[in-house]
Amino acid sequence: MTNMTIYDISEKAGVSIATVSRVLNGSNNVSEKTKKKVLDVINQYEYTPNAFARGLGLNSMNTIGLMCADSSDLYLAKAIYYIEQLLRANGYDSILCCSGYDLESKEKAMDVLISKKVDSVILIGSNYIYEKDEDNKYIVDAAAQVPVMLLNAAFDAPNVYSIVSDDFTSMYEATTQMIHSGISDILYFYNSTSYSGKRKLAGYRTAMEEHGLLKSGNLMQFYSGSHEDIHAMGSQLEKAAEKGLSFHGVIAADDNLALGAVKYAQNAGLRIPEDLAIVGYNNSLLTTCCTPELTSIDNKLETLCQHLITTLMGVLTGNEMPKKTIFSGEIISRGTTFSK
Amino acid sequence: MTNMTIYDISEKAGVSIATVSRVLNGSNNVSEKTKKKVLDVINQYEYTPNAFARGLGLNSMNTIGLMCADSSDLYLAKAIYYIEQLLRANGYDSILCCSGYDLESKEKAMDVLISKKVDSVILIGSNYIYEKDEDNKYIVDAAAQVPVMLLNAAFDAPNVYSIVSDDFTSMYEATTQMIHSGISDILYFYNSTSYSGKRKLAGYRTAMEEHGLLKSGNLMQFYSGSHEDIHAMGSQLEKAAEKGLSFHGVIAADDNLALGAVKYAQNAGLRIPEDLAIVGYNNSLLTTCCTPELTSIDNKLETLCQHLITTLMGVLTGNEMPKKTIFSGEIISRGTTFSK
Repeated sequence: MTNMTIYDISEKAGVSIATVSRVLNGSNNVSEKTKKKVLDVINQYEYTPNAFARGLGLNSMNTIGLMCADSSDLYLAKAIYYIEQLLRANGYDSILCCSGYDLESKEKAMDVLISKKVDSVILIGSNYIYEKDEDNKYIVDAAAQVPVMLLNAAFDAPNVYSIVSDDFTSMYEATTQMIHSGISDILYFYNSTSYSGKRKLAGYRTAMEEHGLLKSGNLMQFYSGSHEDIHAMGSQLEKAAEKGLSFHGVIAADDNLALGAVKYAQNAGLRIPEDLAIVGYNNSLLTTCCTPELTSIDNKLETLCQHLITTLMGVLTGNEMPKKTIFSGEIISRGTTFSK
Repeated sequence: MTNMTIYDISEKAGVSIATVSRVLNGSNNVSEKTKKKVLDVINQYEYTPNAFARGLGLNSMNTIGLMCADSSDLYLAKAIYYIEQLLRANGYDSILCCSGYDLESKEKAMDVLISKKVDSVILIGSNYIYEKDEDNKYIVDAAAQVPVMLLNAAFDAPNVYSIVSDDFTSMYEATTQMIHSGISDILYFYNSTSYSGKRKLAGYRTAMEEHGLLKSGNLMQFYSGSHEDIHAMGSQLEKAAEKGLSFHGVIAADDNLALGAVKYAQNAGLRIPEDLAIVGYNNSLLTTCCTPELTSIDNKLETLCQHLITTLMGVLTGNEMPKKTIFSGEIISRGTTFSK
């Protein structure tokens, strides 16, 4: 078996990639002559059976590869759970590689999955897309072999499908709502500059700017410690306050960070939400663990996952599916903010 | 390639399984004559290269298969994280299958992993071992092909290695400590009857019994809802109290359930720990999320994972390793119990 890709077939058969894809997916919109050209190349080069080959009745393992940076992250773990359930319901097995956060490990994990003859790779979380095009080459290369699905990241390349939550708008609305409740010094607390992380920050900035409240960089606090160390998060806010930073609201990029703000308020003797209003993100299990319970943004993870699987199943059966789909989040109000 | 196992080789070569293993792992403690017998059988039947074959320089994918019931469970997710890190540090990739909780899905997930030519399968969590021997056949079968490692479950079979936390003693000690602090009506709150679940319950029962406090079954409350629904957990305790059940302490089988008890106390206006003392299990992220912070049992998950990988690496390089290793847990005292 060779490592021939859909691109190689396209080149050798002298037809477009889309045509090869149609043939491989068993579409009827291809002439017999074109179909023969493609099949001849495939037979000649013993094209490795994979997802594209399903339409030809070649053997597929019915296995989907999943990748996430860190399965101990609550949000990613939940996404894995939904996706695995949905795949199983569709008759697919799944195998997961935890890639870590650095590019080299991601490339390696991608190689592992592709070598396991998966029918598609699903990248879970927004850390897989880089600003430099060359850093996204591992995705383009993988997509030359199997469809690549992105959960909460967007990237435009052939055979890559993006399902994203509108993090910008969610953060914009949460910030605007807090401003309208009478708070003008709102601290933004974040720990990621991923695709999603940047969109969230931009939502906060835009809302503050529109209200003439974007003054100094100090109100944007980046946290670089462990995502489980609630005390360290609280300490960082405590130190910022000791240095004279004044804030009566915290918008956090995830629920863990928001709990850090709750911890800070409790240690400093601040009333929530009267002295400090707090909004988290992800609407996770953690929202019900603290007192008062945490207002948080539900970014509709389950819906995102359902749509991702629907899109993938469409792609695997040769249908044309949207390359990018965007869902809106929703603010779930609890005790850490003023009721509307 | 055939699906020949180490057992088949042993039988056809007329040598013991241990000897086949030694040959396959490249050990020097085998005579040339015996080695030849084994290699002849392998060559004759085109034995599928796998972990045992590494010693012969046959191709290994250096991939370990992991299985867990549900990656969105905090404890399991953490275990996956540690194990993946440790495997990577040892030059191994890993692929994970989330099997769900029913036996048929577990058997299926095992087939998937074995079909991916993994060098070993690690079963994470204590739900993989059943009381009936026939229900554990999928593990025995897998172990005939590759070493099977159990994290926090114990099962005695060839090529199966168990690394367990002493859940019985941990629960026994936590219960005894609470009794000594002056509480005699201690409720046990649990949601699993797995290997580990039964050991924990037995620890509580034994401590209560030894102090003449084991009176009725009511104090042992089984919760069957979602492991994320803190409110439902709290409601169950509220209903039990309304029906006249009296308890001034709660020992919970995991931190989520303990937070349900915290929620119940807050809603009922009970002071923690004065009116209700609470102990959780796993010493997870959740312990620092509530007020007061949660006393919990640290069952040394990271140590367990480290030892599991050390054992596995030993097995894969042909060393004789202990079949069962037991670690002790430790009570981490925080605000939900009286200090000693």
